Amino acid sequence: MLIVQKYGGSSVANTERIFNVANRIIDTVKEGNEVVVVLSAQGDTTDDLIAKAAEIDPNASRREMDMLLSTGEQQSVALMAMAINKLGYRAISLNAAQVGISTSSAYSNAKIRSIRKSRIERELSRGYIVIVTGFQGVNKYDDVTTLGRGGSDTSAVALASALHADLCEIYTDVEGIYTADPRVVKNARKLDYISHDEMVELATLGAKVLHNRSVEVAKKYNVELVVRSSLTKAEGTLVKGDTKMEKVLVSGVASDKDISRITVMGLSDQPGEAFKLFSLLDKAGICVDIIIQSLGRKSKKDISFTVSKQDLPMTLETLEKNKDRLGFAEVSHDDNVAKLSIVGAGMATNSGVASLMFEALFDAGVNISMISTSEIKISVLIDEKDVERGMIAVHDKFNLAESNYRRD
Amino acid sequence: MLIVQKYGGSSVANTERIFNVANRIIDTVKEGNEVVVVLSAQGDTTDDLIAKAAEIDPNASRREMDMLLSTGEQQSVALMAMAINKLGYRAISLNAAQVGISTSSAYSNAKIRSIRKSRIERELSRGYIVIVTGFQGVNKYDDVTTLGRGGSDTSAVALASALHADLCEIYTDVEGIYTADPRVVKNARKLDYISHDEMVELATLGAKVLHNRSVEVAKKYNVELVVRSSLTKAEGTLVKGDTKMEKVLVSGVASDKDISRITVMGLSDQPGEAFKLFSLLDKAGICVDIIIQSLGRKSKKDISFTVSKQDLPMTLETLEKNKDRLGFAEVSHDDNVAKLSIVGAGMATNSGVASLMFEALFDAGVNISMISTSEIKISVLIDEKDVERGMIAVHDKFNLAESNYRRD
Repeated sequence: MLIVQKYGGSSVANTERIFNVANRIIDTVKEGNEVVVVLSAQGDTTDDLIAKAAEIDPNASRREMDMLLSTGEQQSVALMAMAINKLGYRAISLNAAQVGISTSSAYSNAKIRSIRKSRIERELSRGYIVIVTGFQGVNKYDDVTTLGRGGSDTSAVALASALHADLCEIYTDVEGIYTADPRVVKNARKLDYISHDEMVELATLGAKVLHNRSVEVAKKYNVELVVRSSLTKAEGTLVKGDTKMEKVLVSGVASDKDISRITVMGLSDQPGEAFKLFSLLDKAGICVDIIIQSLGRKSKKDISFTVSKQDLPMTLETLEKNKDRLGFAEVSHDDNVAKLSIVGAGMATNSGVASLMFEALFDAGVNISMISTSEIKISVLIDEKDVERGMIAVHDKFNLAESNYRRD
Repeated sequence: MLIVQKYGGSSVANTERIFNVANRIIDTVKEGNEVVVVLSAQGDTTDDLIAKAAEIDPNASRREMDMLLSTGEQQSVALMAMAINKLGYRAISLNAAQVGISTSSAYSNAKIRSIRKSRIERELSRGYIVIVTGFQGVNKYDDVTTLGRGGSDTSAVALASALHADLCEIYTDVEGIYTADPRVVKNARKLDYISHDEMVELATLGAKVLHNRSVEVAKKYNVELVVRSSLTKAEGTLVKGDTKMEKVLVSGVASDKDISRITVMGLSDQPGEAFKLFSLLDKAGICVDIIIQSLGRKSKKDISFTVSKQDLPMTLETLEKNKDRLGFAEVSHDDNVAKLSIVGAGMATNSGVASLMFEALFDAGVNISMISTSEIKISVLIDEKDVERGMIAVHDKFNLAESNYRRD
């Protein structure tokens, strides 16, 4: 089998952990597999480099930031190759330029366009374990780009797809995907498998284990992922194309506190007002999540939406600058909110799920201020202080500690 | 004018120094010049990375070492570009792969083969200051290589040659090339100019300011260098093609303590014995410097030579392993030796220079154990403890504090 394995920054943070991962890789080779490994930068390396750059210019150009940050992964792949060599196996490190990982030009947030296979395949055929820098690529100008937060997961999935790997293993510090964050919900259960669609929603909704873009890529190219621990031999969670035959209604609960609510009040109730508002925010690079619109007084309407906490200042500034153009009365915002979501592929055809969730929250005394639904998830906006209580209540209501919630 | 400037690791060791250099670069631009900058890694970065690798494997493969170490320069060029941008000027950082600095395959000690000009010229024509990683290149396998100690000087000279730059400035922490090490010889004098040939000898013989390979490249492609301080506005020393019209006999004194003497005794006095000996050492990658051969007793001969202190253990081991093949009686060695040299282009035609040097050492009570001469230098092997005294004596004898020693 050809296996792509990805290890995060904490798994390679020091010499001891590097050797731990090296042994794990060698075990996979001993079982008769070819292995391509994707690594993140060691431990705090990326944060240290960001701090160094901030001393010079907190608003340094993204091109130069990518040039700087990409060195972290290059260091970890070289060190890993040394460790594997030291243990008597042949390994070679490659950066994104050497592999030929082509991306869009968007520095700090590039998308992978294509991956050249020839160099990796040549090294594999020579009997080498290939260690590739995660998180980075090269754009059409030969410039180094980075893929944004969680980019190494995406690198691994894209490599697995390009190389037609039999398996893509994402190693992390937890044993797999859980029905809820085990630090909050004590009886959260590890899932044996979950569909790509559900995983995209879970990742987007705040489950930190996998980055949502990596799952989107996995879904698009139908790459089977295994999320498992680099510290134990436990089986992990399989993320694959379709689990609908299981009739699972709810497979997990997620929460996200990195969220702010903004309400724009007194917009004129005419077509195109919402479009004007959100296209302005889009141009400013602000990503809007839940949106609800309600009728206000005197033919006016209010629009509420959520953005990440980081984007709040720029959102307020953009609105203020365009107050006349948009023609609204005032803006309010709330930082102390959180999003609580349930995810499940079977939810679309079953309206009873939503009411069960609301009942759980009502019983727990948690107030809901916004609701958003899709085919496979239901998200509600609640007070930040209620998140843990809400998660536990919903998790219990669907009895997720026992089994996936399904309709008999 | 198109100017290539090279700054060493101590000049960019922290944020304050980076801004100091950034201002210096901007001053050069303000005078109407186009500027290409070559940087080393910050301060101790390279040593820190070497230590990190040594924790994993003190004998790590050179390919992976180069992959690791090259990240240091990439960090400093990105940070410098940020600093120049912050000061309101346009700068772009480029690594060796982006520029297209092609080298031989010899990891850790590669030679530059060719430099592509197109990317740098395009950025210059767009009005950018171009910041290039020193010390590194890319070989025909697309692998990162490094140029060995002092490699950033060589990068700068090679870029100046490829770009047909009008000037190549090597910035350092001293004000130029001196007649002797100013820390030892208090009245050492800064030279206004020195020929490439003399500078090659001075660098080879232990003057640490410029790396000898960089001067060899400068000589080969007739690149004029200026060695000057990054801390003051002093003029520096011009290193150029030919200063013979000056009839300078002796322009400087250099010393090197990183040296060991080895004597192989009782070799049979037949043709080819020396060849066998030195070709064996060459194959082991050992660089031999001064060689003298003397007749021993009973048709046997002794050969003495010097190697760097670092190569001593491997030299002794190589000799011991081949004792039967070489057919010698025994080997002795001495670690406590040093090489003292005088350099001057006019020396070849003037035998009086050597005797004056020996007289100076005799007067100072310094014993000479080996002598080696070339067209433009005389080196003697002396006790390590006598080096400082010997340098001062020779420097005084030729009156170098006043002017270059010349024949009237």
